[in-house]
Amino acid sequence: MSKGYFITLEGPEGAGKTTAAVEIKRELEALGYDVMLTREPGGIKIAEKIREVILDPSHTEMDSRTEALLYAAARRQHLAEKVRPALEAGRVVLCDRFIDSSLAYQGHARGLGIDEVWSINQFAIESMMPDCTLYFDITPADGLKRIEQNAGREVNRLDLEGMAFHEKVYEGYQLVQARFSERIQRIDAAQTLEKVTEDAISVLTDHFKKSGFQ
Amino acid sequence: MSKGYFITLEGPEGAGKTTAAVEIKRELEALGYDVMLTREPGGIKIAEKIREVILDPSHTEMDSRTEALLYAAARRQHLAEKVRPALEAGRVVLCDRFIDSSLAYQGHARGLGIDEVWSINQFAIESMMPDCTLYFDITPADGLKRIEQNAGREVNRLDLEGMAFHEKVYEGYQLVQARFSERIQRIDAAQTLEKVTEDAISVLTDHFKKSGFQ
Repeated sequence: MSKGYFITLEGPEGAGKTTAAVEIKRELEALGYDVMLTREPGGIKIAEKIREVILDPSHTEMDSRTEALLYAAARRQHLAEKVRPALEAGRVVLCDRFIDSSLAYQGHARGLGIDEVWSINQFAIESMMPDCTLYFDITPADGLKRIEQNAGREVNRLDLEGMAFHEKVYEGYQLVQARFSERIQRIDAAQTLEKVTEDAISVLTDHFKKSGFQ
Repeated sequence: MSKGYFITLEGPEGAGKTTAAVEIKRELEALGYDVMLTREPGGIKIAEKIREVILDPSHTEMDSRTEALLYAAARRQHLAEKVRPALEAGRVVLCDRFIDSSLAYQGHARGLGIDEVWSINQFAIESMMPDCTLYFDITPADGLKRIEQNAGREVNRLDLEGMAFHEKVYEGYQLVQARFSERIQRIDAAQTLEKVTEDAISVLTDHFKKSGFQ
């Protein structure tokens, strides 16, 4: 068993996870926790290389099962090289996207099946599931509006998907949240950054208390 | 159901599969079959990129589960883009290495478990198993001797493994062959190329006859 605490942040595009993550980290540190903020591929050389293959806009012919296996491979390497050592050192790990993204995107939105994608990801993570997941809930329309406002960001292969895909991702997250309702806590991501951060900290400190993590 | 016939060639390093494959293709063509000879990644751009990540000698820190997932991803893309279309067109596909390599190398030799590696590969291939597999049987010592004689070949990450690893691969192939004894036919790879080819053609034409493939 790891001595640390493993938190993942999930939600569709434009939910504001990445911005909120920085604030959550700051607040947790102010409370005295040693926090590592990361996201796949997280600067891990092999995982970065895999990510390049996934996001290359010229790879439009990529099969969705190939994509799911590549995400699982990058996840594995990031977990083995970065997340697991931090948890073993007793740190709080805040990871922007993890297994639930694959369940919602590849499992549901791509139609591969949540159970099948769960299965290859269990091979990748060897039961090292998050202790708590914050689900940043925002409608696809509101999420896309935020992305469009977020100028200067590079367009990747996933941005080229249409609205129907983003609707399916949203639906996927709702199914995943229903399935893992104890682990996954909903945060209303349509709120201000300040309120989102406040809600997140409230959920997390509550979880720390329940599990005896200090 | 595909109209073609799917043959895979398996065996440890130095078993002579790759050389024999060319002869087997020639003989089958002489018998009137339309044959596509391929091997992963098989010129498929995405699969080539994945292969580069796997074989990069600087990636010594690669986790064995990452490696297994990457092989499955490259397999999937090669199958979807090249093997499946050929089978659907009624061709004979001769594929140098396929799922049994992963079972022997990652499943047994790397110790991940044959069942677990089988499971992620089933996700990759969606039950598109070979109709017949030729297992080129050679002892690790004889196999390595052949590799050393094969000058001018580039050294990749897998060549850097020691003899103990190659022994485990051999053991893995024996376990896999015992498990799939109907599909996997043993060829004595210590024989001359001529005799190996003759045995292979004999096994294959026999299989074609039994399954009614013409």
